[in-house]
Amino acid sequence: MAVYNSNANNLLSSAESFCPGISLDCVILGFHDGNLKVLLNKYACYTKWMLPGGFIYKDEHVDDAAVRTLVSRTGLSDVYLRQFYLFGDVSRTSIEENEDMLIRQGFGKEDLTVSNWFLQRFLSVGYYAFVEYAKVKVQSSIEEDIAWFDLDNLPQLYADHNHIISKALSTIRSRLSSLPIGYELLPEKFTLTELRIIYETIMGSKLDRRNFQRKILSTGMVVKLDEVYKKWGQKSSALYSFDKVKYQDALKNGIPIF
Amino acid sequence: MAVYNSNANNLLSSAESFCPGISLDCVILGFHDGNLKVLLNKYACYTKWMLPGGFIYKDEHVDDAAVRTLVSRTGLSDVYLRQFYLFGDVSRTSIEENEDMLIRQGFGKEDLTVSNWFLQRFLSVGYYAFVEYAKVKVQSSIEEDIAWFDLDNLPQLYADHNHIISKALSTIRSRLSSLPIGYELLPEKFTLTELRIIYETIMGSKLDRRNFQRKILSTGMVVKLDEVYKKWGQKSSALYSFDKVKYQDALKNGIPIF
Repeated sequence: MAVYNSNANNLLSSAESFCPGISLDCVILGFHDGNLKVLLNKYACYTKWMLPGGFIYKDEHVDDAAVRTLVSRTGLSDVYLRQFYLFGDVSRTSIEENEDMLIRQGFGKEDLTVSNWFLQRFLSVGYYAFVEYAKVKVQSSIEEDIAWFDLDNLPQLYADHNHIISKALSTIRSRLSSLPIGYELLPEKFTLTELRIIYETIMGSKLDRRNFQRKILSTGMVVKLDEVYKKWGQKSSALYSFDKVKYQDALKNGIPIF
Repeated sequence: MAVYNSNANNLLSSAESFCPGISLDCVILGFHDGNLKVLLNKYACYTKWMLPGGFIYKDEHVDDAAVRTLVSRTGLSDVYLRQFYLFGDVSRTSIEENEDMLIRQGFGKEDLTVSNWFLQRFLSVGYYAFVEYAKVKVQSSIEEDIAWFDLDNLPQLYADHNHIISKALSTIRSRLSSLPIGYELLPEKFTLTELRIIYETIMGSKLDRRNFQRKILSTGMVVKLDEVYKKWGQKSSALYSFDKVKYQDALKNGIPIF
């Protein structure tokens, strides 16, 4: 067998340990430098970026497999992680694309029957996670590159991964009419502009600055601090913090903001 | 092979056509006689009731498999059907329980290795459906009994199916703070008591009759008709109907009722 790449070797040797025909994909969202970002990875031998994902061990809860995937790529374990959809389109992955990836990982064409496990149809269960950007330790290696991408400037991804990200965002968007967002994404102190950008990115539309400020402050969830943020050459901005009790209460009971 | 039951025979002969290790279960909800009900089925040879479910053909979209399951049990195809969760607990089904079911279906103990396909671990994707009770043609047969059960008086079900129903209800409940309910469940003309009972059953708590009436009418979604419903020996009740345009608008944009 012409496999010289350890990823491919590992994949084949552990195939029997995994539930067949099902994978998971994580849409890991972080906020940095005025942009909502998603974490992607790319095998060194392959051309396309993809969502950090993996398989489910036969003796493992699906949620635990998602946590394992998250930890291995970010170093974080205690994060806001939610299952949101099972992607079950027959043509969501293509045999040609997967064969191409296997060949680039070191399989010879003659070996592809060996890898039938990987070439079967896969359903994939999607999870989304909110992480604090600064706390993520991106776990790149020689074989796997990991990087943040702005949500509004994504490359063409492997299989249906662009669609998985869209579906994650529309799921989060459908929650926004009754549930708050931002606590897990922002550092302890933040500006209202940062919080507004998170809402705008997920809603896919611009919000009036003053209106947003008035609405968000009227919930009592966000508290103004006695500190400002000042960047050289710019006007200073007031800093805010979440009232954790009120935020949790809003998460539990719903809070109409828009 | 000692299989004399055609269900079991069919199952084994088609196992190779299905995606391995994944099933689907449908929580089909209907409203009748003052109660929110769920449709369950029971194999004649087996002791426990279960959610109508099935497997996914290797060349079939998961959503299409859910529609197929629904049509085969209710005769209805054009219904409100939504995927809501992938159940991935390692011990959600038990080998003992499944062996017991196979033996009752006509397998000899010596045949159980033949049925390994069915005894493997199964993940299951849950769908819920809202149907109009009167339109359902329950498709019972000699081998499979199908019946409606009140949601507040369920028997102990197969595997984790009680949990799947609870999760469906909590998912629907989490939507109630911003989305309307009732259009697919009620006939064209209904009383506000019927609509209130649907909300109460899903919220798991009683609602003040007058308060509910005031809130629901203030949305403009529900219109009073110039007709009443009168049961012999009882007070007559006003009949109402949904304003379809306003209901669809509320489904799309959200509507805070509670």
